[in-house]
Amino acid sequence: MNRDELLQATKKQLTPARWEHTLRVADTAVRLAKRVKIDPDRAEIAAILHDYCKFWPDNELISWIKTCHLPPDLLSYNKELWHAPVGAEVARKEWDIEDEDILNAIRYHTTGRPRMSELEKIIFLADYIEPGRRFPGVDRVRELAESDLDQAVLQALNNTIIFLIERGQKVYPLTLLARNDMLDQVKRNEMRLREESI
Amino acid sequence: MNRDELLQATKKQLTPARWEHTLRVADTAVRLAKRVKIDPDRAEIAAILHDYCKFWPDNELISWIKTCHLPPDLLSYNKELWHAPVGAEVARKEWDIEDEDILNAIRYHTTGRPRMSELEKIIFLADYIEPGRRFPGVDRVRELAESDLDQAVLQALNNTIIFLIERGQKVYPLTLLARNDMLDQVKRNEMRLREESI
Repeated sequence: MNRDELLQATKKQLTPARWEHTLRVADTAVRLAKRVKIDPDRAEIAAILHDYCKFWPDNELISWIKTCHLPPDLLSYNKELWHAPVGAEVARKEWDIEDEDILNAIRYHTTGRPRMSELEKIIFLADYIEPGRRFPGVDRVRELAESDLDQAVLQALNNTIIFLIERGQKVYPLTLLARNDMLDQVKRNEMRLREESI
Repeated sequence: MNRDELLQATKKQLTPARWEHTLRVADTAVRLAKRVKIDPDRAEIAAILHDYCKFWPDNELISWIKTCHLPPDLLSYNKELWHAPVGAEVARKEWDIEDEDILNAIRYHTTGRPRMSELEKIIFLADYIEPGRRFPGVDRVRELAESDLDQAVLQALNNTIIFLIERGQKVYPLTLLARNDMLDQVKRNEMRLREESI
């Protein structure tokens, strides 16, 4: 798979505005990856592909969810959740991506999940904080992402759950599990830091 | 089982302040039960027993959770959740209560659950809105409970989840499932009302 080929093919799947978003997510992801010393090329591939299926018609997404045996409860939650897990399947089947960490970063970029890898956290956060994003609370997550990915992911998940509740929308259970798990992780991190400082 | 015997035995399990709370929950539950035309005597029994194990020591609650094969994930969430499911087991074993609806009303009075019965909603709400409760948002839930139990439960669950997130505490997954389910129920109720008014 050739990087330029991937860029051009993804661009064709998206509106110009979403394509600009994707490029900003890729820049942000590469920057975060370099900071935490994980492979920026893998972060870039995941970022480029993260919204690949964003504008696919509902029936096509539903067909992929069924054919690939993705969690059937997706269909009783917000449609906005569908493009991420389908995107991972498309990346595997149409782009021959076999790196499970890249696939998971695409798959869980909207919902999060417990025990996220560093790459998964980076794609989740880059999508949330890329410079085009404007919503209450995003600046605090941007700040946290500069120093602590776990705290930033926790804050983003908290914001997302509260936002959905206040808007009268359902919250996908995996997002709550991701948030509870990240809360435990942040507490463990704090405890380790305290022990190290004694 | 004699009502006075139940009252006296429960009083012995609780601090005076909690006993006063229990009496207010019982009054509130009986009033709500009469309003929605379900048996007030069953509501009273569930209300009297709902906090029976509130002050039991942790090791005793843990022992009951294990012995009765209650959901083991309870042990990795807030201790405040334990007294309700244990209370239902105690009501069954020590008070010979066989009415599953009363037992479920005790069991789920803290967390809620999907597909709550009318009695379960009443005990959940009476515990939340009894006149001694003072916290942000309680008055709105009191108002809603006068006209629509489902909307009141939804609002109480929303408040609880947001409160726990803002306090940096874990949210028991069943509570989110209860909230998503009640959101669907409220939407179905609204749709039915609109159809009936056409």
